[in-house]
Amino acid sequence: MNQNFFSLAFSVLLLSSFSLLKAQNSTSDSTHIRKIFNKALSAGHGYKMLDYLSNEIGGRLSGSPQAAAAVDWTKKMMEEYDFDTVYLQEVMVPHWERGEKEEAKVISSKAKETVVAVAALGGSVPTDKKGIKAQVIEVQGIEELQKLGKEKVQGKIVFFNRPMEATQINAFNAYGGAVDQRVKGPSEAAKLGALGAIVRSMSLFEDDFPHTGTLVYDESANKIPAVAISTKGANLLSKSLSEDANLKFFMKVNSRILPDALSHNVIGEIRGSEVPEEIIVVSGHLDSWDLGDGAHDDGAGCVQAIESLRLFKALGIKPKRTVRAVMYMNEENGLRGGQKYAELAKKNNEDHIAAIESDNGGFSPRGFEVDATPELISKIQKWEKLFKPYDLNDIGPGYGGADIGPLKNDNIALIGLKPDSQRYFYVHHASTDTFDQVNRRELEMGAASMASILYLLSEHGLR
Amino acid sequence: MNQNFFSLAFSVLLLSSFSLLKAQNSTSDSTHIRKIFNKALSAGHGYKMLDYLSNEIGGRLSGSPQAAAAVDWTKKMMEEYDFDTVYLQEVMVPHWERGEKEEAKVISSKAKETVVAVAALGGSVPTDKKGIKAQVIEVQGIEELQKLGKEKVQGKIVFFNRPMEATQINAFNAYGGAVDQRVKGPSEAAKLGALGAIVRSMSLFEDDFPHTGTLVYDESANKIPAVAISTKGANLLSKSLSEDANLKFFMKVNSRILPDALSHNVIGEIRGSEVPEEIIVVSGHLDSWDLGDGAHDDGAGCVQAIESLRLFKALGIKPKRTVRAVMYMNEENGLRGGQKYAELAKKNNEDHIAAIESDNGGFSPRGFEVDATPELISKIQKWEKLFKPYDLNDIGPGYGGADIGPLKNDNIALIGLKPDSQRYFYVHHASTDTFDQVNRRELEMGAASMASILYLLSEHGLR
Repeated sequence: MNQNFFSLAFSVLLLSSFSLLKAQNSTSDSTHIRKIFNKALSAGHGYKMLDYLSNEIGGRLSGSPQAAAAVDWTKKMMEEYDFDTVYLQEVMVPHWERGEKEEAKVISSKAKETVVAVAALGGSVPTDKKGIKAQVIEVQGIEELQKLGKEKVQGKIVFFNRPMEATQINAFNAYGGAVDQRVKGPSEAAKLGALGAIVRSMSLFEDDFPHTGTLVYDESANKIPAVAISTKGANLLSKSLSEDANLKFFMKVNSRILPDALSHNVIGEIRGSEVPEEIIVVSGHLDSWDLGDGAHDDGAGCVQAIESLRLFKALGIKPKRTVRAVMYMNEENGLRGGQKYAELAKKNNEDHIAAIESDNGGFSPRGFEVDATPELISKIQKWEKLFKPYDLNDIGPGYGGADIGPLKNDNIALIGLKPDSQRYFYVHHASTDTFDQVNRRELEMGAASMASILYLLSEHGLR
Repeated sequence: MNQNFFSLAFSVLLLSSFSLLKAQNSTSDSTHIRKIFNKALSAGHGYKMLDYLSNEIGGRLSGSPQAAAAVDWTKKMMEEYDFDTVYLQEVMVPHWERGEKEEAKVISSKAKETVVAVAALGGSVPTDKKGIKAQVIEVQGIEELQKLGKEKVQGKIVFFNRPMEATQINAFNAYGGAVDQRVKGPSEAAKLGALGAIVRSMSLFEDDFPHTGTLVYDESANKIPAVAISTKGANLLSKSLSEDANLKFFMKVNSRILPDALSHNVIGEIRGSEVPEEIIVVSGHLDSWDLGDGAHDDGAGCVQAIESLRLFKALGIKPKRTVRAVMYMNEENGLRGGQKYAELAKKNNEDHIAAIESDNGGFSPRGFEVDATPELISKIQKWEKLFKPYDLNDIGPGYGGADIGPLKNDNIALIGLKPDSQRYFYVHHASTDTFDQVNRRELEMGAASMASILYLLSEHGLR
């Protein structure tokens, strides 16, 4: 077959295919999406809301007064925007406090002390008031640790130093490849008699900011204190160890583990005009870590979700199906909000056809990841052409989001907003996650992207 | 035709098409591109180079000592990287100096003075030492100005206040739709007897930073002083005018226009091993505005171009065609470097098959814009699949770049690196264009993107 002929045949078929798609996705869809983006870019409320949430309320770890303030504020915003129904769902959440700032030092065999930047991992038990001081054993991960065995680990502090893989194009893949050290490392170290754990910050950048994040203690092991060390601190410690294997590390953690606290998911909805029993969730999580103000993680997702419904109201869009903005509590250290929401949805026989979450930062949107049956994924991919004018080129199978995960079954599409990932692990879980790192246009375009797919889902459904 | 059958037929044809493409773009291509990205992301030199150019040399307007230092440094870098040939091209450039910081005030009818942030447009004549003080006439553009006529403009300062269109998805389109006010506005105002011009900063953000940029005086008009006013200042002035039409504006510009200065394009190349007479340029411009340090505009493009050739050397890639890194001088206020390069290329009968420029900021790369015949564009688009793993989804007709423009003919593809555009007009030509606004990964991925298309062009050519 001559290649020119082939190209021609191919083009003809492509054109036919586009015509079919075009019939399916009416002009009305593209007009509505254009209106959504115009409104978001010229008069969006997302940035203003995020300014308040980040700068007036600030970091809002589950159980904290700030988390409670965020619940109140979110409810008030949704009421002011006059959503049809606004309500809270009670949920008991873990309550951990960092306490006074941690201390850490590298102490050479010759007693030279170098301060390094650390932050307790979320959920870490405290050290006693004197702190702990011990030799350090560096490993590249849990497997290496286990090979070392008790003899080499006992009485020491284990230093997990495998970096996120810089060559990953999608930074989330690099995170996924390293984070087991933070989540499981401390307990694995404890099983071999370690006194404490140091974990290299989950960051792709070399700087002085420790990145916290949750650890999960294995009930079969002693609970030992654990800190994240900045990437520069990790490099320094590793270099120091290579020159002076007998150096000691001092760490002091002042955390408190308190009884579970009462908190809330915050929910606001616009009831569907034609098929109200079919529900589409658009969501983010209201809690954040305490080091920054949680602007990207996940203040951005919250205001984008609220803004999605506000854009509907501002543009007079009356959804055929019910659209519901959900702000989950406790994604960071327990996922209790997401679990509670799914539990109640099941109990109340609610029919969710899709759930959208934005929890990957408020950066320039590039598409959507869909976690669903191949049939549902391909239905959503048929909307590709409608998203192309907005540079949303990347729509395919992937991960929806942590909070919407518990809703998973074969009749629902879990959809994650996919922003550009390159800057995320500079701010993630660190003191650098602040409002000034958010670009207004990028944030509002993310909101418009979510509102647009919400519009298509509410208009056409997925069945 | 049943739609399922259609889909099936379509898929089969798609698969065949992919197989064809696959044969064409051998595994070797994808392996090389993977190596280029791996090296750039794990051990790139772009960020380090940009740190030096931005923080040690700084803003480098044509004719300035910093521009001369940048020429020396660039030549030295390319020599240190051991490119086959490194040389300078002499070029005479305009030499304009801002002088002391400008002053500007809004003076109400009741003599209340409010300082606003302005910066002289590049090339602006100075005011006299006392500055000028006059009434202001606000217009939304040149057309409205011309309708007003001499009677309403004479003796006043013209205030061009049409904003960049926020609803544009590609921010460069918003720039293109507003920048005529800056380039031509002052002379059009002068033709109607205006004493000075104020231009709303070319920015999509509301803040206090004036964004400079070149104006072009029409030789048939008086040269009047002209300043850019910050977007907040513009909003304030417009609001003040609506309340007090007789207010006056004071502006003082201290610029100097000096005789043309000798400067240089800086060129380094690796000679092709098989078809050395075919040349592919990869480039940026070395000059910048003076308010910031020119990190994004266009330090980023320069270091990405140098890094492209360095990556070839580091990976042992011996290009079949000649690859040439060109740092143009004077893109910002004259384009003399680009013109000189094209003039000499013609004079020396050099055969350029493609020229790549990065001059849209060092942000996350999204694809390439190609200015060429449809045939050449479609040849380049056939490489789409090779770029997809790197999130370079947007390859199509567009704008190559200002400096490579003078090379245009039917036998060359002019290719512009296309980064995400949302943040660019926060920094462009303003004091905010500084190194801290550059993200290492985004910058190095841009370099890898350029090096990758350079590799394909040097390996396969375009004929």
